[in-house]
Amino acid sequence: METWLPTLKTGTPEEGYNLAVKLARKAVGMIQPDENVRNVLRPAYASDPTNLTFASQVVAIHFQTVAAANNYWND
Amino acid sequence: METWLPTLKTGTPEEGYNLAVKLARKAVGMIQPDENVRNVLRPAYASDPTNLTFASQVVAIHFQTVAAANNYWND
Amino acid sequence: METWLPTLKTGTPEEGYNLAVKLARKAVGMIQPDENVRNVLRPAYASDPTNLTFASQVVAIHFQTVAAANNYWND
Amino acid sequence: METWLPTLKTGTPEEGYNLAVKLARKAVGMIQPDENVRNVLRPAYASDPTNLTFASQVVAIHFQTVAAANNYWND
Amino acid sequence: METWLPTLKTGTPEEGYNLAVKLARKAVGMIQPDENVRNVLRPAYASDPTNLTFASQVVAIHFQTVAAANNYWND
Amino acid sequence: METWLPTLKTGTPEEGYNLAVKLARKAVGMIQPDENVRNVLRPAYASDPTNLTFASQVVAIHFQTVAAANNYWND
Repeated sequence: METWLPTLKTGTPEEGYNLAVKLARKAVGMIQPDENVRNVLRPAYASDPTNLTFASQVVAIHFQTVAAANNYWND
Repeated sequence: METWLPTLKTGTPEEGYNLAVKLARKAVGMIQPDENVRNVLRPAYASDPTNLTFASQVVAIHFQTVAAANNYWND
Repeated sequence: METWLPTLKTGTPEEGYNLAVKLARKAVGMIQPDENVRNVLRPAYASDPTNLTFASQVVAIHFQTVAAANNYWND
Repeated sequence: METWLPTLKTGTPEEGYNLAVKLARKAVGMIQPDENVRNVLRPAYASDPTNLTFASQVVAIHFQTVAAANNYWND
Repeated sequence: METWLPTLKTGTPEEGYNLAVKLARKAVGMIQPDENVRNVLRPAYASDPTNLTFASQVVAIHFQTVAAANNYWND
Repeated sequence: METWLPTLKTGTPEEGYNLAVKLARKAVGMIQPDENVRNVLRPAYASDPTNLTFASQVVAIHFQTVAAANNYWND
């Protein structure tokens, strides 16, 4: 069985940030599972400054979680 | 007596993410308990990019809680 | 003297979630103490998808607090 | 010298919640120090469901801080 | 070399709150460095109830950080 | 191989704040990778008071992470 989220551990902060972006996008796909609808929404979405800021905020919240899970990569 | 939330513990991060989605949806059902109303709202809701981002944010906040409850699945 | 919030401790995660909903509602009542006004606002409020998501977010933040106060019900 | 915030410690969770409301209001007064303007804004503010939810969210964030400062009143 | 943020330590909770307000304002100045533009925006900004609440929320998030940095002034 | 985020450690709180701003901006660039589009959006974005506040909020969330990663620069 495959999983899209085997662990919160990453080797580097940058990989942790990328995982945060993935975590933010996943919920959108779960709430709107129709890929065609998402493809229609994406251009408008990514050209609206407020939406971009909101999306950045979701990434920030997930990055808190990922960073804590990795003890801030201090080990 | 049944409970919809017996524990915050999950076996894997992915199951934890799914629980976060469930926690986000539960409040909506408690505030708007009329399923017919929710069914009417859902299509518009899931086709609005800003709403999708906001919903993703609620999932992110709950995922912080679930991840902490599971010690980030590091045990 | 009665208090509406004697403790953050709850027996189960589900009771903790219910307490988070109560905490979210309380502030609304303190900022808009006129029950008649709140009764007028409620139907529109509970039928607006964005409002429902915002309300779910407040519950999520309080649930973080309640869950931490209960050590995530791991004891 | 008087201070409006001598401590984050409170005797009970309810007093902690009241302090969270005070903390939420304080910033509004600092950003808009003109009391006349605030008095004009208040009725509209407290009758807008989305504003009420946003205000409840600020209280929730401060309540996290106050609850942590009091070790969730578990001592 | 001068710094606008030498430390997160403050002597009192009130000073910590003032630092949180400063932290909230700093980002605005970094994103919109033109003081003339900010001066034009400020009156409308400070007279919009929703903006005031959003600004109060940013202060609340920074106050969490400052309070944690000071161990909630419990030492 | 270069990385834009080698570490969350910074020498001073001010450098930590600057890193938080960088973290906030990075997600915007990942979601809207077309620099021309971002250049078109930026002026309107930075002149809208609500957007400025939202952007400040994302910085605040990242600053929580960076500050925790540096043990609030208390060491």
